[in-house]
Amino acid sequence: MLVSALLMSVGINSCLCVLLFILYSILRKQPHNYEVFLPRRLVAGTSKRRRNKVARYIPSVRWIWKSWRPSEEELMASSGLDGVVFMRMITFSLKVFLFAGIIGVFVILPVNVFGDQLTQINYSDWSANSLDIFSVVNLNTRSPWLWVHFGAIYLVTAFVCCLLYLEFRYIGMKRIEHFHSSKPQPNQFTILVRNVPSSDGATVSDTVDRFFRENHSSSYLSHVVIHRTSKLRSVVDNAKKLYKKVHHKKQADPQRVKKTPMRFFSRKDTPEGHYEKVLQELEHNIRLGQAEVSSPGKEVRAAFVSFKSRYGAAMALHMPQSVNPTYWLTEPAPEPHDVHWPFFSASFMQKWLSKIVIAFACLILTALFLVPVVLVQGLTNLSALEYFFPFLTLILSMKIVSQIITGYLPSLILQTSLKIVPPIMEFLSSFQGHICHSDIQKSACNKVIWFTIWNVFFATVFSGSAFYKLSVILDPKEILFKLAVAVPAQASFFIAYVVTTGWTDTLTELFRVVPFMVSYVKRSLEPTEEEFEVPPMRYHRDTPRVLFFGLLGITYFFLAPLILPFIFLYFVLAYIIYRNQFINVYEPKYETGGMFWPMIHYTMIFSLVLMHGIAIGLFALKKMELATYLLIPLPVFTLLFNEFCRKRFMPIFTAYPAEVLTKRDREDQNDPRMGEFYDNLVSAYQDPALRPLRFSGSRNDSLTSPLLSSTSSEV
Amino acid sequence: MLVSALLMSVGINSCLCVLLFILYSILRKQPHNYEVFLPRRLVAGTSKRRRNKVARYIPSVRWIWKSWRPSEEELMASSGLDGVVFMRMITFSLKVFLFAGIIGVFVILPVNVFGDQLTQINYSDWSANSLDIFSVVNLNTRSPWLWVHFGAIYLVTAFVCCLLYLEFRYIGMKRIEHFHSSKPQPNQFTILVRNVPSSDGATVSDTVDRFFRENHSSSYLSHVVIHRTSKLRSVVDNAKKLYKKVHHKKQADPQRVKKTPMRFFSRKDTPEGHYEKVLQELEHNIRLGQAEVSSPGKEVRAAFVSFKSRYGAAMALHMPQSVNPTYWLTEPAPEPHDVHWPFFSASFMQKWLSKIVIAFACLILTALFLVPVVLVQGLTNLSALEYFFPFLTLILSMKIVSQIITGYLPSLILQTSLKIVPPIMEFLSSFQGHICHSDIQKSACNKVIWFTIWNVFFATVFSGSAFYKLSVILDPKEILFKLAVAVPAQASFFIAYVVTTGWTDTLTELFRVVPFMVSYVKRSLEPTEEEFEVPPMRYHRDTPRVLFFGLLGITYFFLAPLILPFIFLYFVLAYIIYRNQFINVYEPKYETGGMFWPMIHYTMIFSLVLMHGIAIGLFALKKMELATYLLIPLPVFTLLFNEFCRKRFMPIFTAYPAEVLTKRDREDQNDPRMGEFYDNLVSAYQDPALRPLRFSGSRNDSLTSPLLSSTSSEV
Repeated sequence: MLVSALLMSVGINSCLCVLLFILYSILRKQPHNYEVFLPRRLVAGTSKRRRNKVARYIPSVRWIWKSWRPSEEELMASSGLDGVVFMRMITFSLKVFLFAGIIGVFVILPVNVFGDQLTQINYSDWSANSLDIFSVVNLNTRSPWLWVHFGAIYLVTAFVCCLLYLEFRYIGMKRIEHFHSSKPQPNQFTILVRNVPSSDGATVSDTVDRFFRENHSSSYLSHVVIHRTSKLRSVVDNAKKLYKKVHHKKQADPQRVKKTPMRFFSRKDTPEGHYEKVLQELEHNIRLGQAEVSSPGKEVRAAFVSFKSRYGAAMALHMPQSVNPTYWLTEPAPEPHDVHWPFFSASFMQKWLSKIVIAFACLILTALFLVPVVLVQGLTNLSALEYFFPFLTLILSMKIVSQIITGYLPSLILQTSLKIVPPIMEFLSSFQGHICHSDIQKSACNKVIWFTIWNVFFATVFSGSAFYKLSVILDPKEILFKLAVAVPAQASFFIAYVVTTGWTDTLTELFRVVPFMVSYVKRSLEPTEEEFEVPPMRYHRDTPRVLFFGLLGITYFFLAPLILPFIFLYFVLAYIIYRNQFINVYEPKYETGGMFWPMIHYTMIFSLVLMHGIAIGLFALKKMELATYLLIPLPVFTLLFNEFCRKRFMPIFTAYPAEVLTKRDREDQNDPRMGEFYDNLVSAYQDPALRPLRFSGSRNDSLTSPLLSSTSSEV
Repeated sequence: MLVSALLMSVGINSCLCVLLFILYSILRKQPHNYEVFLPRRLVAGTSKRRRNKVARYIPSVRWIWKSWRPSEEELMASSGLDGVVFMRMITFSLKVFLFAGIIGVFVILPVNVFGDQLTQINYSDWSANSLDIFSVVNLNTRSPWLWVHFGAIYLVTAFVCCLLYLEFRYIGMKRIEHFHSSKPQPNQFTILVRNVPSSDGATVSDTVDRFFRENHSSSYLSHVVIHRTSKLRSVVDNAKKLYKKVHHKKQADPQRVKKTPMRFFSRKDTPEGHYEKVLQELEHNIRLGQAEVSSPGKEVRAAFVSFKSRYGAAMALHMPQSVNPTYWLTEPAPEPHDVHWPFFSASFMQKWLSKIVIAFACLILTALFLVPVVLVQGLTNLSALEYFFPFLTLILSMKIVSQIITGYLPSLILQTSLKIVPPIMEFLSSFQGHICHSDIQKSACNKVIWFTIWNVFFATVFSGSAFYKLSVILDPKEILFKLAVAVPAQASFFIAYVVTTGWTDTLTELFRVVPFMVSYVKRSLEPTEEEFEVPPMRYHRDTPRVLFFGLLGITYFFLAPLILPFIFLYFVLAYIIYRNQFINVYEPKYETGGMFWPMIHYTMIFSLVLMHGIAIGLFALKKMELATYLLIPLPVFTLLFNEFCRKRFMPIFTAYPAEVLTKRDREDQNDPRMGEFYDNLVSAYQDPALRPLRFSGSRNDSLTSPLLSSTSSEV
């Protein structure tokens, strides 16, 4: 890639950025776009629908400043600890790339440029030079200037490690603070018990009750046995959908509804009485089903067990329970609305098998994803298109069209196919035995991170080289040399990648392109004021993308420091835009309590070690023996540092310690509201499919009433 | 090796066995040998010193039958669970080698003998045949008979795994039973807390007290802070030794003492008054030292914390305590007399460094142990001896002497140097950061096992071959082939090894050769009735030896089944002899609660996988492709089985589950003796160096009084 090409790309993309920002600032002020761009404020009622008509069409930049403004406390209040962790990932990257950027641009870049490995630079015509003159490739073998890189590597590693330590500590502290400041929550008092042993004659419920009464008598409160409800659940879900539609129809103007081309019950317009009858029938069926499922025969050998104090719950959680360690397995209970109910219905064998199958599927998907993509890309060359679609011949013969097709189509296909990966991974994770949605999301996030690193980074770096040969993989020394040759060679590709894909990715996120288009189409079809939902934040989609740019920056920081300013700009954009999805758009659906941070930490450590590996290979190739040997301790120390962090901070992320629990418990002792809380706790973990339902009649409230107020026959 | 040589060796060793058994049966009846052969019965008072003079010299076999007789309950009572585990290791091996022996001798051996790879067997002169005709080497490439071996491998693996499962379950059950039947013990109610954080102004004692009062108020009882007492301890130990000697002297006849050539205070015979004065001074100094050490400045940031119930102690043990997970680290407390006090004095940095240094030292010792041994062996050839000791030339020229020197001396040197390994390993383990003697012994046992496997098995198998080349070690396939060639080639060596070393080892153990000789020398020098101590069982010395023969048997069972009857006989001998030295000689000093079993289990699994590896290599060499591939799942399944056992049983070995603890606690609730127990519990973990001492005056009881009755100023 030439400097001119890069400058062109930067210019075009910057202009696009400014234009799109202006467009966004206008679009977001249009009332009919509020649902897309400001759903949270709409729900909260802080944004009025009507506005000054003129001001609506004047672009403004206030929202950019606004998005810098909110403090971490506000963010915590609006998006929970997970939102804070996500934003801290971005500010962490900003700090790292500010530091690395200064070193890179003002120290390493000049050193690289004045190297003499490549042909002399044509100073008179800057733009005609290759980007390679900015990279380490430009330095001679045994060049003493390489010691500058050596120092920079140590310096940046130390800086990143210090920052990682501080962040891990900060987020661990936040986690504890968050726990201290949170209201009493059912999951703090509850554990999940699995593999309840069967005893003759007694139901699971009786067994659980007797066991905890005997062994944890001082703190045991109540329990809810889980039932096999997968079939019933689908019936209830269908009934709820039907009810919602009918309810919506009833409230809307009947005359207007008939005029719209799109209808929910288009086949026959039955009178209201008929709906009532159908719903009554459904209600009756569901009640019968609930009674059947509630019988002991349908019990799953698992239960949610609640305790009188957080300390009591933690005690039962940590202590080995049974003489046979495969029985009475305990784990922390998720939040009630976070429970992934379908999975409890699966038998042990099913769970075990699905786990293995899913792990295998992920591996295959990650390793072989590129094969069909490359095949499709191969089909999109000009001659193939002309063969399959002869009528396009004329259009294809135009120069600009052919350029777009050969230049953009393959990368468009790759990007589009990458977009479908997070949902696929989430789908796969949901079969993996996780008991709550947040675990599923966490697991999906992890999968997507490794998927991205493998399919974007390594696939690009080794494209065309025989990396897939097993013999190379088995020889660690060979891998380092291969990396040292292949990674710097792709520097200009990744610089272009950051400028184009990175920036446009964040802008796509800003415009919420797909929801925007969906909303536009819907509005044009049926201009009713339909109900809308605040979209949940999908961390497994965004975290890997942001992390990948961090990985790129760290890996390339001394190889091609030219990448650093662009990555820094990417993170500035990301900061503005994500700060803005959090305030206006996304709402947290469930809280993992900052559990994403360890994943981020490990990915950063991986980036550092990868960078060290490449550096070792490169220094060896440049015949700097001493520097090579002096670099070897660096990854070792980094891994030791990682181990230290794991020991030092991970326990806070897996369980709350005794001193925190007893403090919270003491605070609650004198709280008069705890009586009511305990009453609700008893039924908090009732399966939604077993809750009483009422569709017919006038009391529709039961459908939308909060979970805790429903009474249960279980306890 | 020829059949004739083996027969000769078996004959000689069998005769020796019988002779030595007869000799033992006479020697053990001599009253002056009671101290060596029957110390436990002597202490228990079940054996009278005087006896019928004639019967004393008639050999008897009653003791052999007696050693078969005691039930497991008796063994449990006399030697604790560790003794039971040790004996079950031997009975386990007996079962395995009865089963494998029948298959090996009646199925595999005939198949091997009628193979035709080697030269035809000379049926007329059996003894002239090489032992190799009994081994698998005798079978042709692609011989269909190899499928018999294939089946036997699967069969024996399945049998061993079943047996391992049953044993693990049985010993886990025994452990729980043992806990149920044991009296309340201080360690059941106590945990050790380390890394107590420092708080301004407060002593460690105050900090511990406040923390547990706040966070475990319902069950917390008391605590004992540990002090830095290494210097004081040496003073106290010296004073105790001096006191003992003086005490002993005072009680013995003064006239007789003066006549004996060996004396404790030979330099000057001071009068009794002088001793008293010296002891009074020492006592005073120790009191001053104790007062100094008890000051907060000498506190170690660790404490034994006792609770009102076992459940309470377990609760504090399992729960994470602090927001900073590196503080308030909890672990189960060892038995009070099992505590390894010196180690608490070391600082964190010292501990950490010593851990790394020791690990490295063990590795070096294990890897390079053979180098000096081989050098010494090299020095003992005839010409070298003649050169260094010219006066021996005449003796060395005799044929029988030279044969003994070339034949026995090298192996004698090896065996002798192997004998010093367990003490070395125990010494090394004592610096490794273990807080109790039983852990040290366990760790030493583990080290000795791997030492033996490496230095006896692998060193023999690969003697002379270039196994040490790193490239071979890095290629797993190559290792299997090497093993498949080298292991069967050493079959006759190991058969001879079992016949000679195995049998004589157990006999040496029977005769307690060294203590016997020491006692003999002592008696001849000073024929007083000296105090003697019952020797403690040193599991780290005996377990690896027994296990190694198990490994040999499993590894060779299909390669050279001829080894099996000899190994079976070895275990019969071991059973008789160890059963006997448990009843009569050794006494358990501390109880690990069967913690040796997991180690035994893992070694057996290793033996199985090693056997599978050799089998895979061998089948590949014999060009049995199908069988080779069909064997690959076997080690995988074995390792999965091991993982299952670890999951299923290990938790019982690391901590007692809640249901067991609450049951025991309930039983104790109505016990009137618990009040007294709690009183003693408060001071059970007092450092012995800080206990009040009284050498002078008449009250000497305080020295020998039980630990629990001493009062402490700490709590």
